[in-house]
Amino acid sequence: MKIAVLPGDGIGTEIVAEAVKVLQVLDLQFEMETADVGGVAYDRHGHPLPEATLKLAKEADAVLFGAVGDWKYDKLERQFRPEQAILGLRRNLGLFANFRPAICYEQLTHASSLKPELVSGLDILIIRELTGDIYFGQPRGRRASPDGAFAGAEEAFDTMRYTRPEIERIAHVAFQAARKRSKRVTSVDKANVLETFQFWKDVVTEVGQQYPDVKLDHMYVDNAAMQLVKQPKAFDVVVTGNMFGDILSDEAAMLTGSIGMLPSASLNASSQGLYEPSHGSAPDIAGKGIANPLATILSAAMMLRFSLNQPHAADRIESAVKDVLAQGLRTADIWSEGTRKVGTREMGDAVVAAI
Amino acid sequence: MKIAVLPGDGIGTEIVAEAVKVLQVLDLQFEMETADVGGVAYDRHGHPLPEATLKLAKEADAVLFGAVGDWKYDKLERQFRPEQAILGLRRNLGLFANFRPAICYEQLTHASSLKPELVSGLDILIIRELTGDIYFGQPRGRRASPDGAFAGAEEAFDTMRYTRPEIERIAHVAFQAARKRSKRVTSVDKANVLETFQFWKDVVTEVGQQYPDVKLDHMYVDNAAMQLVKQPKAFDVVVTGNMFGDILSDEAAMLTGSIGMLPSASLNASSQGLYEPSHGSAPDIAGKGIANPLATILSAAMMLRFSLNQPHAADRIESAVKDVLAQGLRTADIWSEGTRKVGTREMGDAVVAAI
Ligand SMILES: CC(C)[C@H](C(=O)O)[C@@H](O)C(=O)O
Ligand SMILES: CC(C)[C@H](C(=O)O)[C@@H](O)C(=O)O
Repeated sequence: MKIAVLPGDGIGTEIVAEAVKVLQVLDLQFEMETADVGGVAYDRHGHPLPEATLKLAKEADAVLFGAVGDWKYDKLERQFRPEQAILGLRRNLGLFANFRPAICYEQLTHASSLKPELVSGLDILIIRELTGDIYFGQPRGRRASPDGAFAGAEEAFDTMRYTRPEIERIAHVAFQAARKRSKRVTSVDKANVLETFQFWKDVVTEVGQQYPDVKLDHMYVDNAAMQLVKQPKAFDVVVTGNMFGDILSDEAAMLTGSIGMLPSASLNASSQGLYEPSHGSAPDIAGKGIANPLATILSAAMMLRFSLNQPHAADRIESAVKDVLAQGLRTADIWSEGTRKVGTREMGDAVVAAI
Repeated sequence: MKIAVLPGDGIGTEIVAEAVKVLQVLDLQFEMETADVGGVAYDRHGHPLPEATLKLAKEADAVLFGAVGDWKYDKLERQFRPEQAILGLRRNLGLFANFRPAICYEQLTHASSLKPELVSGLDILIIRELTGDIYFGQPRGRRASPDGAFAGAEEAFDTMRYTRPEIERIAHVAFQAARKRSKRVTSVDKANVLETFQFWKDVVTEVGQQYPDVKLDHMYVDNAAMQLVKQPKAFDVVVTGNMFGDILSDEAAMLTGSIGMLPSASLNASSQGLYEPSHGSAPDIAGKGIANPLATILSAAMMLRFSLNQPHAADRIESAVKDVLAQGLRTADIWSEGTRKVGTREMGDAVVAAI
């Protein structure tokens, strides 16, 4: 089994180092190979996703990804910016199924912006389509406006698109995930305005007929953004397109109050996957040894479960993380009165010890 | 001065009746004319936005709108569904500037899902572009996929588009609004992925140079969805496109916990406007006399201020609403222990009395 390790920018190096440490104590046979990605790859090789990095990622069974981005790359042309690396990996590896759990850990309930009773025990799984929609749709660009009230004026445009097979495969992923949970799927669309999402709704409904044991409902994206705030626990599995999923998965993550704890997985049809924390590269705290490595460590657990067929090892990591929380260890982002503040490395060591 | 009164479906009739009552006690000279819109218009005239209704709206200085929609129209072809009326009014009247305040009233702070300290005193103004973007962009439809990995498969698509003049005019609206408030604008985009929103960011930045006294910053839409939950009071004026504005304005409204209190205004270049509550038609409570009329009454106040040039009358309504809250009157949606529960009509009467 081969793991491509791509730490990236900002706190990426620090948090990925802890996840690697945890993987190494599991007594499993992996080959791990590290490569540059993001801003650091641009600095060293002139491109955020160098050929060699992409080749490594393609050959590996799984990619363990840190984070990319830093203010200092903001002025670069779009194609050279760090986030193009992540878009390039998704597209080139065909990682169409993004799993973004929003879980509120018992001991961290107080960290949420929401009243504790609304989030305690929260456990939502957002499944975001990741290789289609307006993210990759062609044509796109700038031009003289071809028609409309401002014909002739300078204009920019993008194309939102979904084909039937793209919607079908992500719908199957959602229904199958729901079967392992509480058998409910909420499909989020904007069928009242968009052709793409009327089609989305139609196709998801059709696929749903193959899963009579799963309850499917539909919600408009604006309403979903509201209901997540109003009663997040009413959701279980949420499935949606790339753009809406980007927004709603971040909103849901923030509802938990502990985004430093949330892993993510992005899978293709052959269960090859990219695993990364839900949070970003946090350049403001990079190099200080205070970042929370738990989201990355939990991403490594997802990797073991989804791509490396090691569910038992995944369980061991997940319960070790619960143990360190129960021991009262906290990095700065989740610290509260009465708990012990630890740094990145100390937190990683504690997980290793708990395993 | 002529007002087109379009009550619509569900609770629309009840709440608009109270706003009309309030307008009538102001000793101003209006002509008010009522017409059908939404599902009720489809039932009676075969179209959610009948010719006569559109003509009335076009001739009026302002439109006072209730709400549209009901489950029973869900199966209609898209063009006949109630919400097409609102899209048709926006397009035909050129109502490009949507003002959506998210205000947390002192006495209602507890109604929010968020911890009181995060929302007490909250006062955000979301300015949403309302006639462009993927809502109206052509081409759109279904077809055999012309290219890509699933070429030939059935596909649906939409076009996101913004021209320079469309972005410029909404940016001016936002900067001018900010000048009357705390002189800060947050422009929300997805410039890291979309051509349309890289252009949006560029043009807003250019326009901002004409407002050196206003501080402009930029935020990605996914981050905005998070920051609204994390620290809503960090926002003042937010300006964004039609699609992102739809999602974020609803999210922000729900953060206040009292969506039954939030008005909205949609203006065109000649200050003609459509005024409606931020909430929907709530068919489940229609006809029961329990809906909260205050969002509609406050929408009438916005109408007086923005379209009818009666700022003093607007102030009178707004302070009357504060008075009834201070008196402890509450409709069911905002009721809490220790306050007096009243119905729709009683609430309207109380506002009239306070004026
Ligand atoms: C960095 C950016 C391109 C990316 C996205 O929009 O998908 C990020 O927000 C994410 O959710 O992984
Ligand atoms: C009803 C619908 C078409 C509309 C929109 O998406 O604009 C509504 O959600 C709104 O925000 O006014």
